[in-house]
Amino acid sequence: MPEQNRRLVLAQRPTGNVDESTIRLQEDEIPEPGDGQTLVRNRFLSIDPTIRTWMDDVPGYLPPIKLGEVVRAPAVAEVVKSNSGRYEEGALVFGLTGWQDYALVDDGLQALPAGVDPTAALSVFGVTGMTAYFGLLDVGRIKEGDTVVVSGAAGATGSTVGQIARIKGAARVVGIAGTDEKCSWLTDELGFDTAVNYKTEDVAARLREACPDGIDLYWDNVGGELLDICLAQLALRGRIVLCGAIASYNDRGSTRGPANYRALIVRRGRMEGFIILDYGERFPEAQAQMAQWVAEGKVKFKVHLVEGLEHAPDALNLLFTGGNTGKVIVRV
Amino acid sequence: MPEQNRRLVLAQRPTGNVDESTIRLQEDEIPEPGDGQTLVRNRFLSIDPTIRTWMDDVPGYLPPIKLGEVVRAPAVAEVVKSNSGRYEEGALVFGLTGWQDYALVDDGLQALPAGVDPTAALSVFGVTGMTAYFGLLDVGRIKEGDTVVVSGAAGATGSTVGQIARIKGAARVVGIAGTDEKCSWLTDELGFDTAVNYKTEDVAARLREACPDGIDLYWDNVGGELLDICLAQLALRGRIVLCGAIASYNDRGSTRGPANYRALIVRRGRMEGFIILDYGERFPEAQAQMAQWVAEGKVKFKVHLVEGLEHAPDALNLLFTGGNTGKVIVRV
Repeated sequence: MPEQNRRLVLAQRPTGNVDESTIRLQEDEIPEPGDGQTLVRNRFLSIDPTIRTWMDDVPGYLPPIKLGEVVRAPAVAEVVKSNSGRYEEGALVFGLTGWQDYALVDDGLQALPAGVDPTAALSVFGVTGMTAYFGLLDVGRIKEGDTVVVSGAAGATGSTVGQIARIKGAARVVGIAGTDEKCSWLTDELGFDTAVNYKTEDVAARLREACPDGIDLYWDNVGGELLDICLAQLALRGRIVLCGAIASYNDRGSTRGPANYRALIVRRGRMEGFIILDYGERFPEAQAQMAQWVAEGKVKFKVHLVEGLEHAPDALNLLFTGGNTGKVIVRV
Repeated sequence: MPEQNRRLVLAQRPTGNVDESTIRLQEDEIPEPGDGQTLVRNRFLSIDPTIRTWMDDVPGYLPPIKLGEVVRAPAVAEVVKSNSGRYEEGALVFGLTGWQDYALVDDGLQALPAGVDPTAALSVFGVTGMTAYFGLLDVGRIKEGDTVVVSGAAGATGSTVGQIARIKGAARVVGIAGTDEKCSWLTDELGFDTAVNYKTEDVAARLREACPDGIDLYWDNVGGELLDICLAQLALRGRIVLCGAIASYNDRGSTRGPANYRALIVRRGRMEGFIILDYGERFPEAQAQMAQWVAEGKVKFKVHLVEGLEHAPDALNLLFTGGNTGKVIVRV
């Protein structure tokens, strides 16, 4: 067991990708839990695009990470010592325990169900899977026969969205990704009808071909130009689920707005955002459903494992450079 | 009665406001109705921003007006001669009979209910009033206690939206308009709480002051910068009803997209467009309700009357220069 607590703290607000000048590794004493507190040791960190947004000094759905604070992040951790009476030593828990070896927690830990692999808990059964599930069913109101387009399709959420769309009877499922390998994974392994490599192909032309009746549901992970292209091809009463805007999180200047938003008027379209934390109470129903689909082989997932706490910043950058396929997780 | 049929036809697609080079006045023979056809004489033309969009060569909810065709527009007309067996000579009807003295119609005319003034039929009881009604109730799902902001608030639709919002229990109704006279009309006559002159005031600052808890419902008639300002101040689960984008209809270059659209994610917001023609079957219920509100003095409306068919192009330009208060109607 480490004798010190390695902690990655926000040294400076990044303007692009994170690096050593913005995220500083420091070593502190391992804290002692006080009354009611629990000390946990992080095992697996969930690497999500939203972490990058918490580093900006702009109001969000959670307050920005303060300078000098450890980087906030979801993780699976092991209980080392608890004075709360609620957690057993050695138990695996889930919480926002951050980029550090050890965390002292007052509240907000959830026990991991027995037999669930920690990486599955952070992907299909975690926020990633829940985002895909509620975003598609509740926000996107997917229905049989829909033509569904997903950007960031080889990412953790995007790949799950496409598979749930298929299960729910989508007529066409089209993924947009950044390498031929990712595209092959989508069509050969996950049942996407078409995958478009946005780095080498004419996306607008490929989508027109793949979606001859327009796009009923566009799952937007990236924003930027792809959002505009899909707006232009929106079907009547088309829906755009805004899940993220990876293309702009690292913007140094001002964000580019979707100039084609007027398509929402002409096509009677809807563009809606959501934050998965709002669905917390309904996670159990979705987790049960996901478990069944995973068991039946209808939902597959891939974990992109990065070894070592110190590589968490690089792991985060992967999401923006497109270096990952599936869920990025750091093994602490 | 005129001996010729004066017709305003689309000579060239405009890039900005319309003028004599884009809309040409020509005189043709008055046509004779054939079997099943009806000849009507236009009395009042409804001047709506959407007419300008039909002049562009881009796919819309109706096909673009072809070059050489009369400008498509809603109007109240009088039946001159009908071979359809459905209309009585002298009866007033409503239809898309265009910018001309006479129109030959196969179908699609609606009789005006007895006793309804033609200018009221084209404003509160017409597409304008229906747009405000269904847009606010159905698309915006207004609820008691909402803070509502309306742009283009002194226009025909905007002024009605604000009044219906008040009736439906909005906590705050804020209008954005372009002159102090318009602003006074909104607050002194129509019951708006606040009116902001976007030409002379700092809109963002005034809205922050008038909407301390954020904007629950933003009715967007204009797009452009105001849409971005309201996105930035959207309340949790705020809704943006996209009714029009006057700021960009006359764009010569590319439209500016709302850079702050990411607020929809963080604030769990929804931005939705609609086309009032989709609600045709439900017009009677809304018209009955509007008639009651008008009779009770709860909904007031103003008509900006322009005399003479030949001035229809100028009347249309008024909507984009902000020269009107209330509904612009041309008396043919």
